[in-house]
Amino acid sequence: MNVHHYIACDLRSNDPRWLRGASSYWKSRMKKPLHQFASVGWMVCVGMLLATSSRVVALDNGLALTPPMGWNSWNKFGCNVSEDLIKSAADAMVSTGMKDAGYRYVIIDDCWQVSRDSAGNIVADPKRFPSGIKALADYVHAKGLKFGIYSCAGTNTCAGRPGSRGHESQDAIQYAAWGVDYLKYDWCNHGNESARVAYGTMRDALKQAGRPMVFSICEWGTSKPWLWAGNVGNLWRTTGDIHDCWDCKEQYWTGWTRILDQQNGLESFAGPGHWNDPDMLEVGNGGMSTTEYKSHFTLWCILAAPLIAGNDLRNMPLEIKDILTNRELIAIDQDTLGKQGRRLRKNEHQEIWVKPLKDGSRAVALLNRGTSEEKITVAWEELGYPDGLSISVRDLWAKNNLGKFIGRFSASVPSHGVVAVKVSP
Amino acid sequence: MNVHHYIACDLRSNDPRWLRGASSYWKSRMKKPLHQFASVGWMVCVGMLLATSSRVVALDNGLALTPPMGWNSWNKFGCNVSEDLIKSAADAMVSTGMKDAGYRYVIIDDCWQVSRDSAGNIVADPKRFPSGIKALADYVHAKGLKFGIYSCAGTNTCAGRPGSRGHESQDAIQYAAWGVDYLKYDWCNHGNESARVAYGTMRDALKQAGRPMVFSICEWGTSKPWLWAGNVGNLWRTTGDIHDCWDCKEQYWTGWTRILDQQNGLESFAGPGHWNDPDMLEVGNGGMSTTEYKSHFTLWCILAAPLIAGNDLRNMPLEIKDILTNRELIAIDQDTLGKQGRRLRKNEHQEIWVKPLKDGSRAVALLNRGTSEEKITVAWEELGYPDGLSISVRDLWAKNNLGKFIGRFSASVPSHGVVAVKVSP
Repeated sequence: MNVHHYIACDLRSNDPRWLRGASSYWKSRMKKPLHQFASVGWMVCVGMLLATSSRVVALDNGLALTPPMGWNSWNKFGCNVSEDLIKSAADAMVSTGMKDAGYRYVIIDDCWQVSRDSAGNIVADPKRFPSGIKALADYVHAKGLKFGIYSCAGTNTCAGRPGSRGHESQDAIQYAAWGVDYLKYDWCNHGNESARVAYGTMRDALKQAGRPMVFSICEWGTSKPWLWAGNVGNLWRTTGDIHDCWDCKEQYWTGWTRILDQQNGLESFAGPGHWNDPDMLEVGNGGMSTTEYKSHFTLWCILAAPLIAGNDLRNMPLEIKDILTNRELIAIDQDTLGKQGRRLRKNEHQEIWVKPLKDGSRAVALLNRGTSEEKITVAWEELGYPDGLSISVRDLWAKNNLGKFIGRFSASVPSHGVVAVKVSP
Repeated sequence: MNVHHYIACDLRSNDPRWLRGASSYWKSRMKKPLHQFASVGWMVCVGMLLATSSRVVALDNGLALTPPMGWNSWNKFGCNVSEDLIKSAADAMVSTGMKDAGYRYVIIDDCWQVSRDSAGNIVADPKRFPSGIKALADYVHAKGLKFGIYSCAGTNTCAGRPGSRGHESQDAIQYAAWGVDYLKYDWCNHGNESARVAYGTMRDALKQAGRPMVFSICEWGTSKPWLWAGNVGNLWRTTGDIHDCWDCKEQYWTGWTRILDQQNGLESFAGPGHWNDPDMLEVGNGGMSTTEYKSHFTLWCILAAPLIAGNDLRNMPLEIKDILTNRELIAIDQDTLGKQGRRLRKNEHQEIWVKPLKDGSRAVALLNRGTSEEKITVAWEELGYPDGLSISVRDLWAKNNLGKFIGRFSASVPSHGVVAVKVSP
């Protein structure tokens, strides 16, 4: 392989493409004219990209072979955590049917910890967690659920609590002793540390501690973790924090559609055991309409995103529960092929997103970002199927078969809404 | 102060100058013509440099107010360390008069450690240190000496033993419990970690552990630690390893004269509690002549360098002991003003180095790098004294007063030799 092909295949680019379109994509990116590359060379190159993306060395802890599902305290409760809150969240996860739908991890985010003792051991807030973390983990485990916790690679967490820097081994051993199953590991107060080194240190400490834990890297995409974290974490955040709105934007957080825009191009880096994480769900937190929450949830499933609910499970309106427990969409997210979906096409307000599934079918989301209802059409050829093929279409929200279609499928999509279908040749 | 002065005073430059010569120095460095700067502005600027260098925030552990003195196992013994060796080195430090001359720290370098236990605690080599590190520290302390140890900021030490990454807090607590007084902290297997972060982590861990320890940063000058380590370590290496030769050069080590060349310009960054470290002494290790060892030792004293002997103290020829215990030169090194000397002038083979002392006098080294004896002259004006002043000169190797001199002092200096004098107006 000559140096040009090597350059074109360079995985430091964050935008390799699967399926078709790679050639025109690269054509638009290359500074040198394409005729320098023989078409055979291109096929080799694209083939290598595909091979490489499936060869990514995944973290060998055997966890998160499908995107992790659970609940986390941060989006709704912030620092206002306690053992009562976590226990009631675990109770609600069972009573609402969330557990039956596949949700497993109950995760305390920041603010459970207050200090370190003289031996450097992390100390939980004795007022808010009077029974201690071990008892809380036991409670969660007794419900048939998994228990998750939070720390930070820096000297302090994002809320200013003690971070794990310099205490990684000690903390990992402590978490293992408590029965922790999942660690979300944040990126504040790091003083320009190398993220790769910092997360590698905790990865090694967790491995050494001996208890398998899902390792959730939360460094906000700053160092393009999709390029290096495949064998470091089970999931890695790709952007700043999500906010409960359609497309708002602040310095550190944005609405979910802005996060969605940043996921396109990252699909080749995800797979069983190692996932891009567009952040936790905002479904049910009150800032968006039910239509918008359905779109948010649908697209997260198309992205093979971790499904970590962030609402108050104890007081969940029926329409919110119905979104979070839509088993047909959850099955798309959890499909064992483990392919992250990508944006097939974007025309003004209309977007078509597609996710290949293990049985050869595709999940397709027709998203309308406009302010009025629009008809959106997807052609079989765009999905890689022959134009004349008669293909079954199932509506994943209505949960009914729409029949067989030849050539294309069209649907009227409400403003800020989505039509999600499974397309099976 | 306008922006130009700010730029000129920028401490990110590694070459600020004290005494005179600053103006011409900057003139040669500035890309913009000097007339942009009013001379008053220059005085302010140079004054700020001086003020800043003395305002550098030093590590607040109260240690190393003069450059640390001691012995380290590496240069002579490498990995071949044991409790017997260290105990005999401590014995010899007392019996040879090294302790009386000011040497205090007995430091085990790499290879004392072999593994970590299941709780992540560092484990000393049970064959080589059967009594354990605590007992060894006790032995050293009983001699009225201080005890030092070695680790590394990476996952493994330079010799491949377990490093401290992720175990910083645990290791610091362990060192404190053992009674460690000095930590040399190396820079292998760090995976492109930020040195500033890595050493900051151990600095914080040592502080937290509560026992004051001299913190010796050994990152070889890679990230210009003089710019950031003033409040991180008590000393920081400025170059790759020293080798026992006059001017040899390999990838990772060089002869002492090449290291000397790299010290010039760093003088403003050193001071009580925070020292540039041109690496340990090679005096007595057999690769150089007695003349060359005297030059090496002299220049290290002029540099206010840490004086860490690296030879076999148990078998020390008289002429080597006389070099290492030259109290008049040690007093230059340990002068409480804490100013690192600088190169005043270099003409072909001849160099003049000068170090200001607390009593207003100056230590001056006339160094001959040539292959035959040369006469070297230093003028009072070069030292900042009036030409006509009658000034006392004392020979620091002959240990006798040479009398009073007007205008200048000259001496014949042998090849690769030095004449070291104290000049007192």
